[in-house]
Amino acid sequence: MEGGVGGEVDHLAGERATAQFDVEHMKVAWAGSRHAVDVADRMARLVASDPVFRKDNRTMLPRKELFKDTLRKAAHAWKRIVELRLTEEEANLLRLYVDQPGYVDLHWGMFVPAIKGQGTEEQQKKWLPLAYRFQIIGCYAQTELGHGSNVQGLETTATFDPKTDEFVIHSPTLTSSKWWPGGLGKASTHAVVYARLITEGKDYGIHGFIVQLRSLEDHSPLPGVTLGDIGGKFGSGAYNSMDNGVLRFDHVRIPRDQMLMRLSQVTKEGKYVHSDVPKQLLYGTMVFVRQTIVADASKALSRATCIAVRYSAIRKQFGPQTGGPETQVLNYKTQQSRLFPLLASAYAFRFVGEWLKWLYTDVTHKLEAKDFSTLQEAHACTAGLKAVTTSATADGIEECRKLCGGHGYLNSSGLPELFAIYVPACTYEGDNVVLLLQVARFLMKTVSQLASGKQPVGTTAYMGNIQYLMQCKCGVNTAEDWLNPAAIREVFEARALRMAVNCAQNINKAPSQEEGFYELSPDLLEVAVAHIQLIIVTKFIEKLEQDIPGEGVKEQLRILCNVYALYLVHKHLGDFLSTGSITARQGALANEQLGKLYAQVRPNAVALVDAFNYTDHYLGSVLGRYDGNVYPALYEEAWKDPLNDTDVPDGYQEHLRPLLKQQLKLSRL
Amino acid sequence: MEGGVGGEVDHLAGERATAQFDVEHMKVAWAGSRHAVDVADRMARLVASDPVFRKDNRTMLPRKELFKDTLRKAAHAWKRIVELRLTEEEANLLRLYVDQPGYVDLHWGMFVPAIKGQGTEEQQKKWLPLAYRFQIIGCYAQTELGHGSNVQGLETTATFDPKTDEFVIHSPTLTSSKWWPGGLGKASTHAVVYARLITEGKDYGIHGFIVQLRSLEDHSPLPGVTLGDIGGKFGSGAYNSMDNGVLRFDHVRIPRDQMLMRLSQVTKEGKYVHSDVPKQLLYGTMVFVRQTIVADASKALSRATCIAVRYSAIRKQFGPQTGGPETQVLNYKTQQSRLFPLLASAYAFRFVGEWLKWLYTDVTHKLEAKDFSTLQEAHACTAGLKAVTTSATADGIEECRKLCGGHGYLNSSGLPELFAIYVPACTYEGDNVVLLLQVARFLMKTVSQLASGKQPVGTTAYMGNIQYLMQCKCGVNTAEDWLNPAAIREVFEARALRMAVNCAQNINKAPSQEEGFYELSPDLLEVAVAHIQLIIVTKFIEKLEQDIPGEGVKEQLRILCNVYALYLVHKHLGDFLSTGSITARQGALANEQLGKLYAQVRPNAVALVDAFNYTDHYLGSVLGRYDGNVYPALYEEAWKDPLNDTDVPDGYQEHLRPLLKQQLKLSRL
Repeated sequence: MEGGVGGEVDHLAGERATAQFDVEHMKVAWAGSRHAVDVADRMARLVASDPVFRKDNRTMLPRKELFKDTLRKAAHAWKRIVELRLTEEEANLLRLYVDQPGYVDLHWGMFVPAIKGQGTEEQQKKWLPLAYRFQIIGCYAQTELGHGSNVQGLETTATFDPKTDEFVIHSPTLTSSKWWPGGLGKASTHAVVYARLITEGKDYGIHGFIVQLRSLEDHSPLPGVTLGDIGGKFGSGAYNSMDNGVLRFDHVRIPRDQMLMRLSQVTKEGKYVHSDVPKQLLYGTMVFVRQTIVADASKALSRATCIAVRYSAIRKQFGPQTGGPETQVLNYKTQQSRLFPLLASAYAFRFVGEWLKWLYTDVTHKLEAKDFSTLQEAHACTAGLKAVTTSATADGIEECRKLCGGHGYLNSSGLPELFAIYVPACTYEGDNVVLLLQVARFLMKTVSQLASGKQPVGTTAYMGNIQYLMQCKCGVNTAEDWLNPAAIREVFEARALRMAVNCAQNINKAPSQEEGFYELSPDLLEVAVAHIQLIIVTKFIEKLEQDIPGEGVKEQLRILCNVYALYLVHKHLGDFLSTGSITARQGALANEQLGKLYAQVRPNAVALVDAFNYTDHYLGSVLGRYDGNVYPALYEEAWKDPLNDTDVPDGYQEHLRPLLKQQLKLSRL
Repeated sequence: MEGGVGGEVDHLAGERATAQFDVEHMKVAWAGSRHAVDVADRMARLVASDPVFRKDNRTMLPRKELFKDTLRKAAHAWKRIVELRLTEEEANLLRLYVDQPGYVDLHWGMFVPAIKGQGTEEQQKKWLPLAYRFQIIGCYAQTELGHGSNVQGLETTATFDPKTDEFVIHSPTLTSSKWWPGGLGKASTHAVVYARLITEGKDYGIHGFIVQLRSLEDHSPLPGVTLGDIGGKFGSGAYNSMDNGVLRFDHVRIPRDQMLMRLSQVTKEGKYVHSDVPKQLLYGTMVFVRQTIVADASKALSRATCIAVRYSAIRKQFGPQTGGPETQVLNYKTQQSRLFPLLASAYAFRFVGEWLKWLYTDVTHKLEAKDFSTLQEAHACTAGLKAVTTSATADGIEECRKLCGGHGYLNSSGLPELFAIYVPACTYEGDNVVLLLQVARFLMKTVSQLASGKQPVGTTAYMGNIQYLMQCKCGVNTAEDWLNPAAIREVFEARALRMAVNCAQNINKAPSQEEGFYELSPDLLEVAVAHIQLIIVTKFIEKLEQDIPGEGVKEQLRILCNVYALYLVHKHLGDFLSTGSITARQGALANEQLGKLYAQVRPNAVALVDAFNYTDHYLGSVLGRYDGNVYPALYEEAWKDPLNDTDVPDGYQEHLRPLLKQQLKLSRL
């Protein structure tokens, strides 16, 4: 974990000594198992020790060099995976720790799964081995210049030509240009392209097609294919390592059998026919992808809090008014009240992500048995968790950056890049607002069905308890009463249900459901958030009901769970009060208890971020160094900037000297 | 205002036709006067039409080229200022529209004012002409590697040596390295350096000294001076055009008369003596600088909302469930509920900034008359407004970026750079949390003095009405009642005062004031925010009591004022409810009214951002184009990326071809 400047002295040793729990066991609780800790550790060190994978200079590279660096790392990673005969688990972790967005993410994460999920067995047999061996590189070309979230609005056409048994792929307008797909611009040879299927003069809507884009001989774009990169993106380094691309088709022909045909196909004669595979299977993929996004959220937020906690323990500012040495900023209540809820959120998201992984397995089993009864609920729950965790993480990273003061603004802090790389998660795979409205729609439906006696399932089961939850009174009388998980759970349930019922009633007052939904959509977002926060709190509480070994580990997690819940009570106090779920006095008690919990987190804070077990390489932050030796590292890092190549800057002779030497006429200023 | 791709068709003409007010008069209301509109317009066009000032390629430039580009622009701007014999007002506007952070900002904004404010008449006579003519370039070297907000913690020393009549400037530790000052790294020849003054063995605390850093002959650093740039910062382009610097002194000697001696001086013999100039004068400077930061906040937020509003009117996504064309995203209530409060905030910050300018003049006059009675209140008010407006603006820009969906993530949208350039405003010139705590401290003091009958002044005058405000009941009975400015003002006053009194009482329960202040500091932040929001709302309401010419102009501003206020009521509902300032039902009515107000803003939204009168050059956003011709512009912009220089990317031969051609062994994956 060490490395870099100095490294002999652990400036955070004092902080580590105050921890009241077994850090090694907390690592296991965080990672999920001893095995998970070990294999992650092994892969992280493998990457950190390999000079090809260095990334400390990444934000200084011009675009072309950065992209080339990504190609280099991807090829080298593959070489290592092959040489070391890594397992799939190990290979995935190795790519994670390489920590640089690139075409391989889409190749493995979208192209291969699309073929697996939507291709027939025959198609899988043909295409997957090519992809597995990197004989082709694939991406996922769905979004267009004029069309993002609304897949049904895509304009690209795939018109079947029975004369040649081919589909003609075409971009009829500028706005139909494929736009954004990662890996598309420069690296991919193939793509799964989504287009409107047209046969026998009829538009059958959006379907996927495997289309070759570049020559396998010299990588040049094929005739009729216009390909490019869509240009620079947020931040230095960050997602600029990725060739998000633009793609236009001018009547490009592909064989009929390159339509992905698991769910439906076009016959030789041009007939459109459905297969007997249920369409719902596609939802399984969505649940899977969004589940990984929730897992990524806890990873990103834990990295940011790790940096901010360690640096806040090193940084000193101001002191007691009586004089004496300055105070560690981590001791300030204002710092704690902003930072510790984020630390708690990282743990909360980790555990709900773990549960979501289970949910995905459960859904998959049920789908295989053609049981679709919980699919909608699982889908809503996953979509909502994706939205809530990614928004909180994006905001949380930026908050951590601000918590590091001025130095957090330097690239060497790692935080600007972490933010810039993370924020697209709020938009991709379903814009968070669109997803929350889907959740809300599902909740409104669930509420409306309560009257008919339909029992809600899974994460909406609590709504069945409507009689009680609509009128229950929170029993909290003292600040300590807020430590009772049953009390917490009940107020979160009451808040979520009452907000949902209230909104449903208001919708019913509108001239039509659709109109009511439209007018009340801002409120519906809040309903969805309340429901999803309840899920996160509940899953954290349920985690604590399990056996968690290690001295003090469960106690620390209990504190974090309470921090997370009471922080939400404080943040959304308006919700809790306006629904009568708690009283103003109980709200004040929650806040009082929160202050006490911060004091309990304080001595454990550094150890709690150590438990993430991140290497200095992966963190990529001079402020977050394991040894806390921040200042020499900041100082050293500065001199690496190209601007410091010379004492006198380029441009002095042309643009500074004439000014200083008065070769410009003076103004009357 | 036009220019760029196409430009013949105004795609937003339909939006402009629906405006219910006179845009030209709104421009005047926004800018402050007809003259202000005209001169800004003239300077903006001057910059936009000059090819040297192009900035569309800025995010693609490597650091050294970007810095050189800044030097070029600064020299060219100066040349134009001289040639055209621009007034100071014009010159400042020209620099504003060049819109690229650089050493001139610090030279004019910090170095010159420091000499003016802290230098004796003699010193001003010597140094100001040199600075005015750019014979020297200066910066402001205060913060150090280990010391930011806490000026009293600075370590650099200035030790007087009576033998040579010199000060010895020295950096005793690594953490005493000057760190962050803009213009310091590469451009400045001189700096005002803050250091601990030591004479006759005694430490007299922090004082300012004019120190030459570089040779005026060849720009090389002087002996004993180590100078460099501190490295890359958040974003592409953005603040990387600025040479924020690091500076270390190894016993550098300067003549005694280079200590800034207006307030105190050291005699030839080494005696430390105060002058009879009151120290409070320095506060005037702080009020001035922070006042300009509030003005900048409205500028930055209005730019972001201008981009987001225009693009939201062009962008279409999804449609009615009944089919038909897709809907402009600006029509979605969820979009409106996120975007219109920001638009309203931009106007609110603009008007409070205007008022703050008046406050600064008022304070200056009073200081000149040695009347310090309102200084503390003015200082608290300015500090708080700086904190609240910059935080809201930083968050607001990022929200606008998200409101532009995926395309907002592209540099060509202008929003990533706007955000990256803006966020340091939350940290510099007083970290926002530190400032809010200062405000809170002042409020606690004001509350504690109420009992003794001391009448609070200025923006705290409402606190004198404590008897009434502690027990008054909000009279709102219908949604329309929330349009009454007196009702709004009263609930904001009640909320702010009750929170302050509540906090003061809790502090009094603590063993000591200091301890109470420490424990309750997170709550104190909220008290300060409530007070400052009241000021912003009040100043907006007072603006509407003035004469505002132009058809429909005042009515639109009234709508925006109500949006701003009711959005805050909704956002901080917990505050209003827990203090009993309003009831849950009144909160629901506020929210209902807010929805109606959004519908009123909708047809005026594009015209309301047109009133900012920004050129396409200044906005720097393909999404925010005046003519709304977004898609061709996005498409064209993409091809300018260096990665598109070739179809087949650099690195193909080395890192892609071997992979595709299986020159790597296969794994068992």
